[in-house]
Amino acid sequence: MPGSSLGELFRVTTFGESHGPAVGVVVEGVPAGLYLSKEDIQFELSFRRPGRQYVTGRREKDEPEILSGVYNGRTTGTPIAIIVKNTDVISSLYEEVRHKPRPGHADLPYIMKYGYENWDYRGGGRASARETVSRVAASAIAKKLLMLSDTIIAGHLKSLGPVELSEGVTFEDILCSKYSPVRASKKSLEEKFEELIKQATVEGDSWGGIAEIVVKNTPIGLGEPVFDKLKADLAKAILSIPAVMGFEYGLGFRAGKMKGSEANDEIIVKDGKLRWKNNYSGGILGGLSNGEDIVLRCAFKPTSSIRKPQKTVDLRTYEETTISVIGRHDPAVAIRGVAVAEAMVAIVLADHAMRANYIPTVKLSEDQSRLIEERWKRYVESCRPMQGSQ
Amino acid sequence: MPGSSLGELFRVTTFGESHGPAVGVVVEGVPAGLYLSKEDIQFELSFRRPGRQYVTGRREKDEPEILSGVYNGRTTGTPIAIIVKNTDVISSLYEEVRHKPRPGHADLPYIMKYGYENWDYRGGGRASARETVSRVAASAIAKKLLMLSDTIIAGHLKSLGPVELSEGVTFEDILCSKYSPVRASKKSLEEKFEELIKQATVEGDSWGGIAEIVVKNTPIGLGEPVFDKLKADLAKAILSIPAVMGFEYGLGFRAGKMKGSEANDEIIVKDGKLRWKNNYSGGILGGLSNGEDIVLRCAFKPTSSIRKPQKTVDLRTYEETTISVIGRHDPAVAIRGVAVAEAMVAIVLADHAMRANYIPTVKLSEDQSRLIEERWKRYVESCRPMQGSQ
Amino acid sequence: MPGSSLGELFRVTTFGESHGPAVGVVVEGVPAGLYLSKEDIQFELSFRRPGRQYVTGRREKDEPEILSGVYNGRTTGTPIAIIVKNTDVISSLYEEVRHKPRPGHADLPYIMKYGYENWDYRGGGRASARETVSRVAASAIAKKLLMLSDTIIAGHLKSLGPVELSEGVTFEDILCSKYSPVRASKKSLEEKFEELIKQATVEGDSWGGIAEIVVKNTPIGLGEPVFDKLKADLAKAILSIPAVMGFEYGLGFRAGKMKGSEANDEIIVKDGKLRWKNNYSGGILGGLSNGEDIVLRCAFKPTSSIRKPQKTVDLRTYEETTISVIGRHDPAVAIRGVAVAEAMVAIVLADHAMRANYIPTVKLSEDQSRLIEERWKRYVESCRPMQGSQ
Amino acid sequence: MPGSSLGELFRVTTFGESHGPAVGVVVEGVPAGLYLSKEDIQFELSFRRPGRQYVTGRREKDEPEILSGVYNGRTTGTPIAIIVKNTDVISSLYEEVRHKPRPGHADLPYIMKYGYENWDYRGGGRASARETVSRVAASAIAKKLLMLSDTIIAGHLKSLGPVELSEGVTFEDILCSKYSPVRASKKSLEEKFEELIKQATVEGDSWGGIAEIVVKNTPIGLGEPVFDKLKADLAKAILSIPAVMGFEYGLGFRAGKMKGSEANDEIIVKDGKLRWKNNYSGGILGGLSNGEDIVLRCAFKPTSSIRKPQKTVDLRTYEETTISVIGRHDPAVAIRGVAVAEAMVAIVLADHAMRANYIPTVKLSEDQSRLIEERWKRYVESCRPMQGSQ
Repeated sequence: MPGSSLGELFRVTTFGESHGPAVGVVVEGVPAGLYLSKEDIQFELSFRRPGRQYVTGRREKDEPEILSGVYNGRTTGTPIAIIVKNTDVISSLYEEVRHKPRPGHADLPYIMKYGYENWDYRGGGRASARETVSRVAASAIAKKLLMLSDTIIAGHLKSLGPVELSEGVTFEDILCSKYSPVRASKKSLEEKFEELIKQATVEGDSWGGIAEIVVKNTPIGLGEPVFDKLKADLAKAILSIPAVMGFEYGLGFRAGKMKGSEANDEIIVKDGKLRWKNNYSGGILGGLSNGEDIVLRCAFKPTSSIRKPQKTVDLRTYEETTISVIGRHDPAVAIRGVAVAEAMVAIVLADHAMRANYIPTVKLSEDQSRLIEERWKRYVESCRPMQGSQ
Repeated sequence: MPGSSLGELFRVTTFGESHGPAVGVVVEGVPAGLYLSKEDIQFELSFRRPGRQYVTGRREKDEPEILSGVYNGRTTGTPIAIIVKNTDVISSLYEEVRHKPRPGHADLPYIMKYGYENWDYRGGGRASARETVSRVAASAIAKKLLMLSDTIIAGHLKSLGPVELSEGVTFEDILCSKYSPVRASKKSLEEKFEELIKQATVEGDSWGGIAEIVVKNTPIGLGEPVFDKLKADLAKAILSIPAVMGFEYGLGFRAGKMKGSEANDEIIVKDGKLRWKNNYSGGILGGLSNGEDIVLRCAFKPTSSIRKPQKTVDLRTYEETTISVIGRHDPAVAIRGVAVAEAMVAIVLADHAMRANYIPTVKLSEDQSRLIEERWKRYVESCRPMQGSQ
Repeated sequence: MPGSSLGELFRVTTFGESHGPAVGVVVEGVPAGLYLSKEDIQFELSFRRPGRQYVTGRREKDEPEILSGVYNGRTTGTPIAIIVKNTDVISSLYEEVRHKPRPGHADLPYIMKYGYENWDYRGGGRASARETVSRVAASAIAKKLLMLSDTIIAGHLKSLGPVELSEGVTFEDILCSKYSPVRASKKSLEEKFEELIKQATVEGDSWGGIAEIVVKNTPIGLGEPVFDKLKADLAKAILSIPAVMGFEYGLGFRAGKMKGSEANDEIIVKDGKLRWKNNYSGGILGGLSNGEDIVLRCAFKPTSSIRKPQKTVDLRTYEETTISVIGRHDPAVAIRGVAVAEAMVAIVLADHAMRANYIPTVKLSEDQSRLIEERWKRYVESCRPMQGSQ
Repeated sequence: MPGSSLGELFRVTTFGESHGPAVGVVVEGVPAGLYLSKEDIQFELSFRRPGRQYVTGRREKDEPEILSGVYNGRTTGTPIAIIVKNTDVISSLYEEVRHKPRPGHADLPYIMKYGYENWDYRGGGRASARETVSRVAASAIAKKLLMLSDTIIAGHLKSLGPVELSEGVTFEDILCSKYSPVRASKKSLEEKFEELIKQATVEGDSWGGIAEIVVKNTPIGLGEPVFDKLKADLAKAILSIPAVMGFEYGLGFRAGKMKGSEANDEIIVKDGKLRWKNNYSGGILGGLSNGEDIVLRCAFKPTSSIRKPQKTVDLRTYEETTISVIGRHDPAVAIRGVAVAEAMVAIVLADHAMRANYIPTVKLSEDQSRLIEERWKRYVESCRPMQGSQ
């Protein structure tokens, strides 16, 4: 059954396995006239790229190739296919996995569904987080289109294991987290996160984390009654990320413990506009964006691949055994997961912005093309390392 | 833009406003040969019906009419349209709402999106929880189809405001909560919930709550890589419910605080079958159902309509004012929300069970029709009041 | 499997059987602010209504009820459900059909697919042309929306059996055919058609016919590469009509016999605009509308229900037998089929006009609402009987 | 807007321009366990390959690369991406086209829709028939899956310009036409077609043609009421092919001239089965396949690119001018169009066979995998040159 496509008007279809020739994506619905370069895509990819500190040692250049839909540096209105070749692949590391499904991994469910003989076990196959390259590549296009309404998306790691952000952060802080090796939005937090990661690496263990995504300047009225509410489509997109086990927006789960008189947000007039005083609803009310910042959070479970021995079953004998997952893995998937969560939010918002006529479906005017380009440059520049960060 | 349809093979399209002539649903994709009566639908509707203790006083009989797709008591394979007329409607209660958008409600976002002049403000219009009648009606069909794999769905209120379930519950306890006026699964909890509700009613306030849904005998392998993961489609369906602000399954948000060695679940052999020891992943791993019980939770915010005065803005003058929401409202939407959450899980599972060939798409055999009927009767009987409950 | 929905942005879902309680339709994606009355819908329904001369004697008032999506005479942006009750139903006429599938009818294929025991044989069940009421009802909304670009759709019967239109006709002639009892666009043709019909009625036989639909003022650029070409979506919509066996546009099948130098159309400049000289491509080139009138034709087979005895098989004995189809049937489905073909073209064009941003997806401005209303009135008035026609 | 995807369960998404780096396709919904090799795909591609006699001189090896979804020679259940690189590209031939839109081509409509500056004019860009490589590649998978029900699809050219097939042909004759350079199913016809082609080449002209596709062993009951009728989905798929201007099945347009007593087909019993005597309805009745051979025809207009000078307009000056289309073009697109029409029928049937549970959606059993492989070999062998054909 199909299931690798997302979006109605801005539509993304991904393909590819961890150790196959390439991963890729077809992006349908991009209006003609958008400036689009390999560098735009690579900019976003750089924030989920492996091979850096504190993340998997797999060395992928992650260089995107645009196969279609772009001519003379601009989109033509036809499907944009992008592929990223898999180069640093060591399938031999996975031989043991073949018979010993890894706890916390998709190995055994895939075998149960598709059959042992049809399972591409190398590097997790289709279930590998490598697949998210396709999503992030597509999100560069989504983010550019959202520049039309000056909408900017940024995410950071709000907590890692037991360590939680305790101070307030600005949107600029969050943007800066892109250059933090642990996706922290404050220098002090960064140090604590790094400490945790180092310790986990020594122990052959990993940590879960909670990411937060904030959206500035969301157009008003995104989302459709009743099933395609914005919160519903965001929840689906976020939960489609491997390792995510929970989603909330605004007050989130805390609302479940509150009284109506506490949780309801006052409607006020500010600068002549109808606004909400505390943004308790995280920018989405009645399933529609209300113009306040969108604020959502999601929980990533700890990386399932750990060096510590874990109990599993040998599929050849049905005997219990242990596995110690070697290979090159993130000590906390949440770190690179932030970029993926950002990507999913971008894809959903671009789709809904088209559905609500904020982004044209056929072609951009020259003015729109240029406006996007200017704002994109400003955005790229505004993503810079924190003061004092490496 | 369309947005009132859900599902690929089992497809539900709802329509209707709170104070319009009727609410209704078209269910496409039901195979021919299913026994289906008005009573089957009314059975499920009875658990979200207003007019009972502790819920809104609106007196709706909620009698479903089947307009198509059923002949001689059996489905014909064509779309099944069901309508429920709105009878106990007092639109005059909403005159004030017209100019004073209610905090926490969809009023203002709908006005912002569709225009003040096009807004059906009566009873919340399309944004009213009344719309969920359509979902619950459709879920009766979904639940019957799921009987083919003996899959049963049950929900209860795990916490209401500050009061939380503290003891273990069996699946039977959860089934019994259907007859609890506060959807509690234990007698002791029921009393505490009732206390809270009474107090809120006195204060003109309301409470949030957290519902939990459990699924027995889920077929293995439901869900599609990579966007239509089962957890993703469940998250969307649950977040599409009015007032829901968060979703999690299995360890959920707790996983974000844990180590890999804690959160990974051991794979074991039990009765000759590959199983997971603790079901930490709530029945879904790698986005696919793994045969363990599906366990998910969602947070309902407190009812937004409260008698206590709240600050808002008068749209005619842009002056700040207050509103005290009269009308007949639930003191905690979470109570009736449980039935709706159950319904959404049923709809998603029926769809995915069809996608994975567990439910035929064209017609049921005679044996299948009868098997469903037997199991449905058993299910109806197994939903009975708790010992000592009213 | 679902299959009763059409359209991406303007989305129509129909339901209902010939002898069930009602037929109906849910129209999703209509922007808020459109004036919409029962009379608008009834206007279009009147041209496919039974109970008139030369068509089936079934006496249906075909009165539409709007159940949702309209408030105070204007659309609200939410799904519009419309039902038409079935009132003049004589199911007893169909007892014989139960065991003797009618040649040319869907009876036997439905039995083969859904099972004999699940087959609603009364009046053809879901396969009845009665289902097309839903389409025509929805098309009134589509046609109103298309007024934004002043796009008008009109159809006529180009040939009935062996009698073919031999003179040129104007768009006004075609509009007038709506009031012709045999859907002829010329008085002389009307007489010949009536002669044929009378003769067929005497003989207990029926005739096939070829309808032509013409569209004025189609917006430029409708259609999407590569599968959702405008010609492709029109073909699907037209072939979804019962009894249609062929579709062509522009030169159509004649192009298959021609040379490139004959079939290619010259590009010219006319009134400062790029145009095509002869509109050989029927308004669609490269799958996209090119601004010329859309011209398409479709072939309706003769009504399958005829009084003349035909050979079939008795399903109880598998013996060959004959059937003489009594009941109230059109002597030529093509006559009322023209209204249905018009409806399908309207639905497809409204959908594509939204896809290409000609019709807003969220709400109409006040000016747009009024413009539509003015043009709609003009359109209604321009549909008037031919000079000298009854 | 998206528009490059087709199918619900067997879903094909194509991308790529004529002179871009590659054309390609993502095929979603293929069950795990299907044997699939590059050779399988190349087999089908060979029948639409350019560079042979009587077709375009563009020399493309058309070698498919499988990027995903296949492991160890078998499908894994995940999306299958296939690309074919564009190698023999001479964009300079198209410089004139840039300012002089070619009559009969998509040039001007694309410019009108997407903007002159965004138009990839090289080789027709996305509108080029080169895009159909993707469809034929995907169809190899569809055809293999259809082997489960022993369903075989074959097409031939029924007429070219004025020359029409006048004798009866067997299904074997039609299969043999694959190796005919003019896609004729009879030796005598082949000679006449060749004569026409040679003459057109001399004159710098081209011919239209009519293709016929026949399907053996179609499963019963494919198609869904009411919009996704099999005839409707076939019509859409066929009309989505560049240059196709008409579609009909069974009696087709002839039915529009007939009486009911002539056009209705007798139901008979043959070998204990319910059958139709003359297959007037071309295997589809009530929109559902009825077990008889599917027979459909479509009209291809003549190749629009001809050497003969044609009138057009220079876009720089809006002056009328002429163009003589150089480049390497088919003298009759209908010849290679037959392979594309076959492909589209295969894609639609595979999709509907999945929808009706004839093909599993998740995985094939070992027996099914092997059965397909055996039948596929038999099919490949049964496609062989006519006696005496070159």
